[in-house]
Amino acid sequence: MHGNMLRLVLIISAIVLQFSTCSVLIEKIDEERVENQCNLSEDLVNEIRGYKNVVSKITDHILNGKFKGEVHKSLQIFTDKFGSRMAGSDALEKAIDYMEDLLKNEGLENVHTESAKVPHWIRGYESATLVQPRKAKIELLGLGTTVGTPRGGIIGEVVAVRTFDELQKLPDSEVKGKIVVFAPTWQGYGATVRYRSSGASEASKKGAIAALIRSATPFSIASPHTGSQNYAQGVKKIPTACITVEDAEMIWRLYNEGENVQIRLEMEDYNLEPVISRNTVSELQGTTSPNKSVVILSGHLDSWDVGVGAMDDGGGAFISWKAVKFLKDMGLRPKRTIRSVLWTAEEYGYYGAKEYAKQHKENELEEFNFFIESDTGTFDPVGLDFTGNKDAECIFKEVLSLMAPLNATQFATPADGGPDISVWLDRGFPGASLLNKNERYFWFHHTDGDTMLVEDPDSLDRCVALFASTAYIIADLSVDIPKDVKN
Amino acid sequence: MHGNMLRLVLIISAIVLQFSTCSVLIEKIDEERVENQCNLSEDLVNEIRGYKNVVSKITDHILNGKFKGEVHKSLQIFTDKFGSRMAGSDALEKAIDYMEDLLKNEGLENVHTESAKVPHWIRGYESATLVQPRKAKIELLGLGTTVGTPRGGIIGEVVAVRTFDELQKLPDSEVKGKIVVFAPTWQGYGATVRYRSSGASEASKKGAIAALIRSATPFSIASPHTGSQNYAQGVKKIPTACITVEDAEMIWRLYNEGENVQIRLEMEDYNLEPVISRNTVSELQGTTSPNKSVVILSGHLDSWDVGVGAMDDGGGAFISWKAVKFLKDMGLRPKRTIRSVLWTAEEYGYYGAKEYAKQHKENELEEFNFFIESDTGTFDPVGLDFTGNKDAECIFKEVLSLMAPLNATQFATPADGGPDISVWLDRGFPGASLLNKNERYFWFHHTDGDTMLVEDPDSLDRCVALFASTAYIIADLSVDIPKDVKN
Repeated sequence: MHGNMLRLVLIISAIVLQFSTCSVLIEKIDEERVENQCNLSEDLVNEIRGYKNVVSKITDHILNGKFKGEVHKSLQIFTDKFGSRMAGSDALEKAIDYMEDLLKNEGLENVHTESAKVPHWIRGYESATLVQPRKAKIELLGLGTTVGTPRGGIIGEVVAVRTFDELQKLPDSEVKGKIVVFAPTWQGYGATVRYRSSGASEASKKGAIAALIRSATPFSIASPHTGSQNYAQGVKKIPTACITVEDAEMIWRLYNEGENVQIRLEMEDYNLEPVISRNTVSELQGTTSPNKSVVILSGHLDSWDVGVGAMDDGGGAFISWKAVKFLKDMGLRPKRTIRSVLWTAEEYGYYGAKEYAKQHKENELEEFNFFIESDTGTFDPVGLDFTGNKDAECIFKEVLSLMAPLNATQFATPADGGPDISVWLDRGFPGASLLNKNERYFWFHHTDGDTMLVEDPDSLDRCVALFASTAYIIADLSVDIPKDVKN
Repeated sequence: MHGNMLRLVLIISAIVLQFSTCSVLIEKIDEERVENQCNLSEDLVNEIRGYKNVVSKITDHILNGKFKGEVHKSLQIFTDKFGSRMAGSDALEKAIDYMEDLLKNEGLENVHTESAKVPHWIRGYESATLVQPRKAKIELLGLGTTVGTPRGGIIGEVVAVRTFDELQKLPDSEVKGKIVVFAPTWQGYGATVRYRSSGASEASKKGAIAALIRSATPFSIASPHTGSQNYAQGVKKIPTACITVEDAEMIWRLYNEGENVQIRLEMEDYNLEPVISRNTVSELQGTTSPNKSVVILSGHLDSWDVGVGAMDDGGGAFISWKAVKFLKDMGLRPKRTIRSVLWTAEEYGYYGAKEYAKQHKENELEEFNFFIESDTGTFDPVGLDFTGNKDAECIFKEVLSLMAPLNATQFATPADGGPDISVWLDRGFPGASLLNKNERYFWFHHTDGDTMLVEDPDSLDRCVALFASTAYIIADLSVDIPKDVKN
């Protein structure tokens, strides 16, 4: 109603002003407003708003009831027991075995694992030393899939640049046989992480013997950050690692002051053949067809081999399955199935999610209704970001507006915090990921500082309440979430 | 005048109320107020206030004039060149040589060094691994003067406690032959650092074979912090190191959950005979007797062997000598000498300052007027904390009130940020140390994160302006700062 009134006013205004000088502008505003409007049926809006009491019940049980603090407690036991869980490691496979047992014991349904082939990279002894113009230890962390140095290490003169452009402009002769140090200025993760992902390849193309990259973080206490990297097709594979912001800046300065900077680098890292890992699945089965229009709640169980992966992504994984468990315990069984998937090998590039998508491809349009993921921290939640078509967005916004008791109604689009579910969202499936107060997320990301000290029991409770409420409503609605899926 | 009026009102009030039930309370308040009052002569107050324009001139030259950014630039060149400067190291002695030349080249007066014997401890290879209940690397930093482990390392079962009291209550048989992990709750540096200083001794008394201590910081990104420790007389010296907050908390949890926690520890640290280092002295000589009633401006040049000692205490050292240099360049020569001293070996326990005090003992009452130090960071200055008798405090507060253009008039007592000058202040000499916005100081303290990234050019400018202004006024006043010196 409100929407139609607005449209009417705008149309009348447009008619009145159609001969005026600003008619073109008004028409444009008009079009945009109409486009941003939702035309949900009154029935559907009322239906969605009818879940207000369910949200209250879920929130109350989790924030103040018997589930209070349970996510944090379980996650602490888990991370204390297994520590870090890198794809390819025994620790990850043992953690998956443990989760499978735990999910069964906790009463979740259809608990099983599904296989996926994942990279198997070994971090060996790693050491770097500034040897000229003075001697100093350089903290480093080799990047996932990097090759090692020749045995005994290498010593190389340094070329330090801030950008790929700067590197390109140097004659090959000035880079050949040297170690390239990338010291990009922090411009947010997306912009800065390119140097970690592609630094080795770009340096190798110019003839460099190694690439050392400023860690992808806005803040540092001399903390090196690991992460994935990819060798471009056909380039010679050279060793690559992240160094601290502090050292990258100092080396950049020394180089630019004309010093002959030399680094000794030794890395015994190497790659083995891929191994089989597993996505871990559990469900609260819907009252209608259990394998149709499923709502996925997810996070990834693997981590890098530093810290204990409490934040990336223990918290995300645990709020996903705990949401399902809490709903079951509250007797809230929706029409559709809610399925928790704990992805494997996200860190190397969504290996688990990609294989899962492949295996479930045939009936995907029928099988999947909505995808949810948390992988940017489980600090205080503020809302959900979303990817989907306009009709889906209209429904989603109505659902999100019910999260006011959690102070978590913030909307953004597209979804930016769900790397695993992007496998589907990028093709037109609708989905959402957690928005949270994660301003310090990248301080700890992929470092030894990713531990339980970062996780707060109350924040985890609010996150899991948001996930449980959202998943329940979407799984219980009379309609599926609309989608426009490309192949 | 204002003070006398206040006293009159209070006395009248006290008389009026003397028979009332609250007369005792009122008298107490009255006494306190009178005690907190100053009886500086009007002439002296006017004299001090007469320096307002000098403060403006100094501030303007440093914040907006040709000196702008100079402290940061010089400090960066210095730390890039020498890196960390641990007492006993070649790096420190080379840095002292460099400073002596630099101070001469910069035109300071009476530039020379004075010898002091300092500890000579070597950090060797250090490694710790959690071996039970699971395998994980433990980051650590051996504490200054710690002994090493027997060659090849040791493996020990862990006893984890939060407090010395908890340790005391354990039967010796439960500690003997084990590694004690101290995981104290952070209660500020002073309270928490006791575990670093005395942890090894207390653990050794109970028969432990090593002591690992939570780093003394309220915040961590898996950063171990080094620092000094002292073996108590007669205890068996056992290896000791700080581990990260993250690991200390995790180990404490595992131990308290009843796990058999075991750590493998290897430390090749050892002590050598003391060596000679030097305090570095430079002056702006006074117009009257150059060696009488000197005002000392100081910081320490040594650091731990991690990071580059930019914050602890490169910044403090550099604002001290730069203040003297800037005053000279501005043609502001006071009546008394301002002497910059860059102390050596503060980190092991003020070895440089203690030797300097000993060597200058004979005429100390005549030689020293006032001591100033910066050793708790050179972030944005907010004022100065002070130690001295009541008369000294009255003068000092008048001087401090002139620092309004720098927003740095905050007063506190006693002085808490001058470990070197405490050698004199503890005996009744008056002095002050920098108060600054150092809420994050202990995040970086004694870690690899103590680098130029912590230092801000504008903050350093404001710090040096505060030091130069304060030192100049105190050195130029018609009166010495009163003192009550004990022997």
